[in-house]
Amino acid sequence: MKGNNMDQSDQNAFTAARFADAEREALYKTIFTRRDVRGQFMPDQISEAVLSRVLLAAHYAPSVGFMQPWNFVVVRSNETKQKVRDLFQTAHDEAANMFEEARRDTYQNLKLEGIMESPINICITCDRDRAGPVVLGRTHAPAMDIYSSVCAVQNLWLAARAEGLGLGWVSIFNHKHLKSILNLPDRVIPVAYVCLGHVSHFKDKPELQTAGWNRRVPLGDVVNFEGYEQGSEDAYASNLLAQIEEDQQKVEAHGYCGNFVPKEPPN
Amino acid sequence: MKGNNMDQSDQNAFTAARFADAEREALYKTIFTRRDVRGQFMPDQISEAVLSRVLLAAHYAPSVGFMQPWNFVVVRSNETKQKVRDLFQTAHDEAANMFEEARRDTYQNLKLEGIMESPINICITCDRDRAGPVVLGRTHAPAMDIYSSVCAVQNLWLAARAEGLGLGWVSIFNHKHLKSILNLPDRVIPVAYVCLGHVSHFKDKPELQTAGWNRRVPLGDVVNFEGYEQGSEDAYASNLLAQIEEDQQKVEAHGYCGNFVPKEPPN
Repeated sequence: MKGNNMDQSDQNAFTAARFADAEREALYKTIFTRRDVRGQFMPDQISEAVLSRVLLAAHYAPSVGFMQPWNFVVVRSNETKQKVRDLFQTAHDEAANMFEEARRDTYQNLKLEGIMESPINICITCDRDRAGPVVLGRTHAPAMDIYSSVCAVQNLWLAARAEGLGLGWVSIFNHKHLKSILNLPDRVIPVAYVCLGHVSHFKDKPELQTAGWNRRVPLGDVVNFEGYEQGSEDAYASNLLAQIEEDQQKVEAHGYCGNFVPKEPPN
Repeated sequence: MKGNNMDQSDQNAFTAARFADAEREALYKTIFTRRDVRGQFMPDQISEAVLSRVLLAAHYAPSVGFMQPWNFVVVRSNETKQKVRDLFQTAHDEAANMFEEARRDTYQNLKLEGIMESPINICITCDRDRAGPVVLGRTHAPAMDIYSSVCAVQNLWLAARAEGLGLGWVSIFNHKHLKSILNLPDRVIPVAYVCLGHVSHFKDKPELQTAGWNRRVPLGDVVNFEGYEQGSEDAYASNLLAQIEEDQQKVEAHGYCGNFVPKEPPN
């Protein structure tokens, strides 16, 4: 049976065991039903208890050299939101003109933000100087601190989904002007601006998939071996690609249905 | 009771409800017990079934304009790994000399990669041209496609943790040479290189925290209101910061103990 070969090594180390079926299912449910929400926000307040948990989930993201370079600027006032909304509108109009005519109509009909409708917006930042000039792990990859803040965004997003909160990442801004609205110092990058709130419902599929903007890529098309776009003929690679096709079919054909993790004996 | 104000709006929309207590607990358990693993890898093979699931979790990350810019280059051969390991060693020696003397010894004593010991390495990439020159959501934030690939890394990491796999993100390389080893075309960025495998155990705290390299920041110190490093005196902000302190204390004082989500009536 697949997976059995780990049972020997793990049996005396509880903490190295895979999580229970139901726990893994909960994680995959979160991942597969997470959506970029723009249009289903409700005005209901987010309780302090819930916001605390999703911010803490973000804060326990990985960070290069454990530098935790992020801040979370919580925006609640209509005044600040309106300034940000105006920035979006300007950039959105500029963006529309960049698309070829065939896509322009579709682009303009897409709702791409919920800044005013969502009760809370959060700007997740990266302070590039937080740990001094030399950072463990950033010495040869200068963007690693920014990547850390992105990991925090993804943790926040997943926690929000599990708490029943929609989150939409808005990126269509002049970011220099965004920095000015939020008083970010020069050294601080606005990595993400997200809208957060309770929602009427979550869509079954990403809106850009439903709208035909892009298709969902078959995962097997982008899994390579040893080098970029290289295949492999060995049994492991063949089994892996067959399994991937089966698993993706399960998620894609009917949406996430709650039975992604096969029932396996405990390890 | 906190959280109750969402019950009215959600009661007729099952899909907008927060997940069950046990499901949310499973997500937070994954997030709070995730570690950057460098030293506890076991040689046991990763089953195709498990690798398929963690790759699919990565593939269902958010992506700007739904462009799914990533590839997953799976590295299994000792030959490729050794080349990458050599790259690491060169950069690691260079990095050591960048630290002031007081930290240099500590730096050199840290184990920062498990390239050879882990059965599988994966390079997660970003193809900047995958969706043509104009990408919805990237028009005013050119790095959004790279951020998408980072979100995929974080999904992969969380899924790995739940499956009992350790993952370590290695960033101390000359990335130009890494591209050459893995045959990445010019347009493709190696966003992350990760080591993946079963482990003997997971550490209770991040190694850099235990080693005193950096402290865990109190989350309240980096939560701001309306603008960078701005506080707020209103009841919501005060309640939020008090809740954050209590919640972080729960996670930090004893490590994650399995009771992060308070028991609340179903919504």
